[in-house]
Amino acid sequence: MRRSRMVVFVGAGIVAVAAGWLLAQHSLLGKPPDTHDADRAAINSVLKAQQAAWNRGDVNAFLVGYWQSPELTFSGSNGVSRGWDGVLARYKKNYPDRSAMGELTFSDLEFRFLGSEAALVLGKWHLKRDIGDIGGVFSLVWQKFPEGWKIIHDHTSAVGFPQPNP
Amino acid sequence: MRRSRMVVFVGAGIVAVAAGWLLAQHSLLGKPPDTHDADRAAINSVLKAQQAAWNRGDVNAFLVGYWQSPELTFSGSNGVSRGWDGVLARYKKNYPDRSAMGELTFSDLEFRFLGSEAALVLGKWHLKRDIGDIGGVFSLVWQKFPEGWKIIHDHTSAVGFPQPNP
Repeated sequence: MRRSRMVVFVGAGIVAVAAGWLLAQHSLLGKPPDTHDADRAAINSVLKAQQAAWNRGDVNAFLVGYWQSPELTFSGSNGVSRGWDGVLARYKKNYPDRSAMGELTFSDLEFRFLGSEAALVLGKWHLKRDIGDIGGVFSLVWQKFPEGWKIIHDHTSAVGFPQPNP
Repeated sequence: MRRSRMVVFVGAGIVAVAAGWLLAQHSLLGKPPDTHDADRAAINSVLKAQQAAWNRGDVNAFLVGYWQSPELTFSGSNGVSRGWDGVLARYKKNYPDRSAMGELTFSDLEFRFLGSEAALVLGKWHLKRDIGDIGGVFSLVWQKFPEGWKIIHDHTSAVGFPQPNP
């Protein structure tokens, strides 16, 4: 009698553990579904902050959206710029003043999450300028750091306008 | 006596399961370290196959390296091409014959793995052609599928040459 009770007890324990494991696997325990809503919102807010920084002429604040690392890369019609300092220098060289910077708009954002800590974001950029509008497409690769989502690679092209960096 | 033996037995079982779990977590069971050597080799072999396909004039075989999906994207100086068929059409339009295709070389590859199933690969492309060389930089986003690593997004720019697709 004592032994059969023990078998039932151990058996129930095994069933409970297995059920818990299955629940955990299937994320039925209140874990948020894999929609990346919070990540998308976080990335969107970085892009909005970049746009606002650019439109008040603050390139340094614009650069806060980028990974502050020597491994940051920016690819475009001039090849690859390397490191946070290199990307900052590229922006300051190509956009030396407010008239060159113009008014920036990002649009048509498309998000693709690559696992839980990386994302690819495609979109369009447009600079409304008195000296002539320019714009094009970008591909941003993002990584989630303890301090938030940062761009670790940017590939930007001008489309339908003369190249901005002749 | 019987009960204490049962307790020892159950206790030993718990210790064994916990030890197994810890070993699995710390990858001490012969799992390869996280160096991505095999992934890097697999991606390299896709790129080598692409180069060989291009250089025998076989654009369809070149496209095998790309994700065969309507969600495939290719960004460049013409904007975004969409879907495997769209990317194939873009290549066939811009490179209608062997003289336009020339001889392709990829170089200066840089790999960054984004989790275990995605990667960013930067590199340079060069077309040696009788009608005039062109080349530039690319950013490829790769995803690991059951059938292997495939390019899910390509952003390509011409550098130091006239735009290839005026």
